[in-house]
Amino acid sequence: MLKCEVISIGTELLMGQIVNTDAQYISSRLPECGVGVFYHSVIGDNPGRIKEALKIGFERCDVVITTGGLGPTQDDLTKEIVADFLGLKLVLDDRSSERIRKYFEDRGRVLVESNLRQAYFPEGSIIVENDMGTAPGCIVEKDDKVIVMLPGPPKELIPMFDKVMKYFKEKQLGRLFSKYIRIVGMGESMVEQKIYDIVSSQTNPTIATYAKDGIVTIRVTASNEGGSNPEVLVNDMVNKICEILGDNVYTTENDELEYVVFKLLKERNLKIATAESCSGGVLAQLLTSIPGSSHVFHSGFVTYSEESKIRALGVERSTIETYSAVSSQTAREMADGACRKTGCDVGVSITGYAGPDGESVGLVYIGVSYGGATEVSEFRFSGNRERIRTMSAVTALDMVRRTILNKS
Amino acid sequence: MLKCEVISIGTELLMGQIVNTDAQYISSRLPECGVGVFYHSVIGDNPGRIKEALKIGFERCDVVITTGGLGPTQDDLTKEIVADFLGLKLVLDDRSSERIRKYFEDRGRVLVESNLRQAYFPEGSIIVENDMGTAPGCIVEKDDKVIVMLPGPPKELIPMFDKVMKYFKEKQLGRLFSKYIRIVGMGESMVEQKIYDIVSSQTNPTIATYAKDGIVTIRVTASNEGGSNPEVLVNDMVNKICEILGDNVYTTENDELEYVVFKLLKERNLKIATAESCSGGVLAQLLTSIPGSSHVFHSGFVTYSEESKIRALGVERSTIETYSAVSSQTAREMADGACRKTGCDVGVSITGYAGPDGESVGLVYIGVSYGGATEVSEFRFSGNRERIRTMSAVTALDMVRRTILNKS
Repeated sequence: MLKCEVISIGTELLMGQIVNTDAQYISSRLPECGVGVFYHSVIGDNPGRIKEALKIGFERCDVVITTGGLGPTQDDLTKEIVADFLGLKLVLDDRSSERIRKYFEDRGRVLVESNLRQAYFPEGSIIVENDMGTAPGCIVEKDDKVIVMLPGPPKELIPMFDKVMKYFKEKQLGRLFSKYIRIVGMGESMVEQKIYDIVSSQTNPTIATYAKDGIVTIRVTASNEGGSNPEVLVNDMVNKICEILGDNVYTTENDELEYVVFKLLKERNLKIATAESCSGGVLAQLLTSIPGSSHVFHSGFVTYSEESKIRALGVERSTIETYSAVSSQTAREMADGACRKTGCDVGVSITGYAGPDGESVGLVYIGVSYGGATEVSEFRFSGNRERIRTMSAVTALDMVRRTILNKS
Repeated sequence: MLKCEVISIGTELLMGQIVNTDAQYISSRLPECGVGVFYHSVIGDNPGRIKEALKIGFERCDVVITTGGLGPTQDDLTKEIVADFLGLKLVLDDRSSERIRKYFEDRGRVLVESNLRQAYFPEGSIIVENDMGTAPGCIVEKDDKVIVMLPGPPKELIPMFDKVMKYFKEKQLGRLFSKYIRIVGMGESMVEQKIYDIVSSQTNPTIATYAKDGIVTIRVTASNEGGSNPEVLVNDMVNKICEILGDNVYTTENDELEYVVFKLLKERNLKIATAESCSGGVLAQLLTSIPGSSHVFHSGFVTYSEESKIRALGVERSTIETYSAVSSQTAREMADGACRKTGCDVGVSITGYAGPDGESVGLVYIGVSYGGATEVSEFRFSGNRERIRTMSAVTALDMVRRTILNKS
């Protein structure tokens, strides 16, 4: 396995103005093509320190990937410093210079000469085109080392990274294949305990788990070492794990939960309405984050006040007075009301205490109304206001998923 | 100024499972106490590589701050490796061991001996107590160097960091003071151009700008070098900048825009209702993210379908048929309907094309109804679906802010 260091260049990272999502993105993808990330470094826009970082990187790794410092300004020095470090000349790439000219032309902007600095690369570079901005990246091989230079903005770097993956897949003899199993409704330690016996002694495939916002992700990765077929190894292991975890597994395609719920609704031609109190729109926002969600998402109500629960959803005043706004009864009438007021097939409601103050912080009722029946469940979520709101929305999505699957 | 490296320890960072927000948080705070962050590094849970990283860190910096590796498991080795590196013994801290015992007792959990490893520190350590978990941190001085060790989980690290700030403020003779000016409704390059003359030759205070999601932040930081008073220097500069940027400045207290709008509404005892189409709940979610938002937030409507705009908000069917759902007229009736249906003082509406497909992606109408008048503005936002939704919500908040300020 090739060892890699990701060196991110930019003073804004060291000032804490932005978080280094580039390093995370690169790290999450590289293992699939047999490159292991062993170090991340962040350095300011300072030639001496950048050169020092390259020296350290090449001493301890086979591959260095830089992010940032490819812009048109005098601060953007990555290519110059790398070329100098490797003893290579910078040469003009005609195709890149054409693309940059066209980029400016298309936008009616005037090209200044400094923009063409972005078309110069260390001699022998493989160019990585950038469809989202003016700074192309490049891959340079020198002796037995490889350096990849990419621009910092994630919206440019992410689409360019496919070409980098392809380069390393072709370069490496080893071949890796991964799948991601995603689980909802079961905590990480419980997941690990349940699959412990079948994964503890594994070396190929390897298994890694990770939890965030109520979702546990298991990555299963196999290589072709010893002549084995990584797809077969991974699929066998994925099947075994899915059998153990049952309907807590909501995808083996690494999809977001809201996307899986969207697909379930769309396939069955169902419309959904949301009725949220403590989650304040987080659920509606998740469902509508998906392109095309208007096929399934009809209406959302953020009924934060008691008055709005009564007016917008038709919750009975007596229900709130007798049982309070945070109760199984209110959740039931909210879900029913969401269906009735909109004519939707599915209504989902959330009411609870998101905190930060109060005795019952974390107590949340979630209701799902579908096919003439309404189910309400009580939850006690821990954590801060943001986490309680997110957990409420994720759990509501999961209840919708299970309800639809059980009735189909 | 002391030079600092942040070394984050944890294989999950190198696998891309989590993003290094600890390094960002530390970097954003340290300059205020006269410590400059020059490097971030990320290393896996590997003793040899951690030791190597410490060596590099102490060669190039005065201060090393480690995050992670303070847990109770065999993988958590930071203190052992640091003690060994510095040639110091690990000794038991009685107060910490008591606190850990109590933490387990309070939760009815059984303490295993390995948990007490967390009460051992390099001799001479200043202990940094952890109220959110079992792993205390520590500060160790050795010769003219300082090492600070903190746990990885942000919810533990963030509250502990105040004590670290206090330590460095007391240690340093130099003293820094910062203020943050936040701007909405004006792009970063325009902001920079407007303030160029007064900031270009500044060395004390220094000025840095940063833009995200439609908000530009200017940090103004001054030191007491040459006997000057940093508070006076910063406040003078902040006043000058605010004068130039006028009502585009929404705070000099580094507050979020939704919090400023919340305060404006609360001070005037106003209730607000939101009516969102393309933003799908992002605006409601921002407003309700604030603790106590139920004082001002009454109802939100996510009227994604035409039918729901008509039913929930009372938009005229003929308006949609004549002008389409994305039009100034529909935005106006949505804002009016939000007020009328809820009895709220302020109604705010968003309707537009968030994409990704279609010719008019980015075209958004935002309406604000208040005090008997309704204003609608047309915007063309660029970027992907997520950015268009966020920009719509941020701009709607800004329109509410300006409307209330202009009418008061």
